[in-house]
Amino acid sequence: MSAPVFSYEKDPDSIYRQSFEIVRAETDLARFAAEEAEVAVRLVHACGMPEIAPDLIFSDGSVSAGLAALAAGAPVICDAAMVAHGITPRLLPQENEVLCLIRDPHVRALAKEEETTLSAAQVGLWREKLGGAVVAIGNAPTALFRLMELILEGGPRPAVILGFPVGFVGAAESKAALTQTGGLPPFLTLQGRRGGSAMASAAVNALAILAGKDAAA
Amino acid sequence: MSAPVFSYEKDPDSIYRQSFEIVRAETDLARFAAEEAEVAVRLVHACGMPEIAPDLIFSDGSVSAGLAALAAGAPVICDAAMVAHGITPRLLPQENEVLCLIRDPHVRALAKEEETTLSAAQVGLWREKLGGAVVAIGNAPTALFRLMELILEGGPRPAVILGFPVGFVGAAESKAALTQTGGLPPFLTLQGRRGGSAMASAAVNALAILAGKDAAA
Repeated sequence: MSAPVFSYEKDPDSIYRQSFEIVRAETDLARFAAEEAEVAVRLVHACGMPEIAPDLIFSDGSVSAGLAALAAGAPVICDAAMVAHGITPRLLPQENEVLCLIRDPHVRALAKEEETTLSAAQVGLWREKLGGAVVAIGNAPTALFRLMELILEGGPRPAVILGFPVGFVGAAESKAALTQTGGLPPFLTLQGRRGGSAMASAAVNALAILAGKDAAA
Repeated sequence: MSAPVFSYEKDPDSIYRQSFEIVRAETDLARFAAEEAEVAVRLVHACGMPEIAPDLIFSDGSVSAGLAALAAGAPVICDAAMVAHGITPRLLPQENEVLCLIRDPHVRALAKEEETTLSAAQVGLWREKLGGAVVAIGNAPTALFRLMELILEGGPRPAVILGFPVGFVGAAESKAALTQTGGLPPFLTLQGRRGGSAMASAAVNALAILAGKDAAA
């Protein structure tokens, strides 16, 4: 008896090419500028859902701010370990530092003191690296809210905020606040409950690829 | 001038409770057995999408097989680092080993030799740990296809396959093959293109919580 044989695409280059062909064919990219469309394509690829495209919001200059920051060697600050581990190191144009501080030994005490989540408490520890950084939030609405508070209180300003918290309590609200509050840095975000670490890291990877292309041009 | 004040829920226990209340209110769980519903709820929570519920498939006995394996100390084998980093160590009932071998130094040469992806090539390195393991696939269709081949060729059989590859080339096809091919171990999966590392790790976390409850009962 022989085992059933599955027929499937195994060539990584071919999988990659076919995937992005399908994403481009099925996603309505008409309203995006060229570099925004590149980022949108990678976000759709990460989640398998062309239907997210209408809910993406790029603030003016967000893509250029993000790729300039990466090209200048800015760190990438992530709210969750999953986001950090979804970033592809070889794409980063300056061996940029990728950090997540949620497991820093001070975070638990800070969260208790500030009566907030671990995710939000870690944001206070971002200060030293935050000015000019790329911030990628793929999990916690409270981290995005706390980041916006810190900036509006006069704290360091990141180059760009990639806002992709996910879920049922605060995710849609934090992203609405990101798009509606004046005085914040450039951002890109997905309105509503959807989001997640895969999208946040895909946004970083997309900016990194664009930064690399710019450098090669 | 004072900064705008955001009003948002900061209490982690309250966020947790409210989130799951909303998931249970909005997700149609009627067709699931009690423990399947617990897993479904955590999968919906991970992605913010109650609408995935109709596409979830649990094979008979898959939840009990998964929690029994974790309770017995089985390792959790992941196809991607993101999946491994989404698993909450304190939930695991036996300090179960969590491993991902995609960055093993042998994988690149194996992939070249076998003319396949890094994701699929790593599956050959799972053999030693695979018998009775919990396998969580949250990224690569080729890893799921290769795993099914290896099992049907007479290789070691995991206790349960958590099949959540995502994307446009092979994801839906590999999950359809998982549900339609005889002779495979118990599984749970999400039909279609959607999936991802957050869902794969949420499935592991859900089984770990159930295993912990069983142990406490």
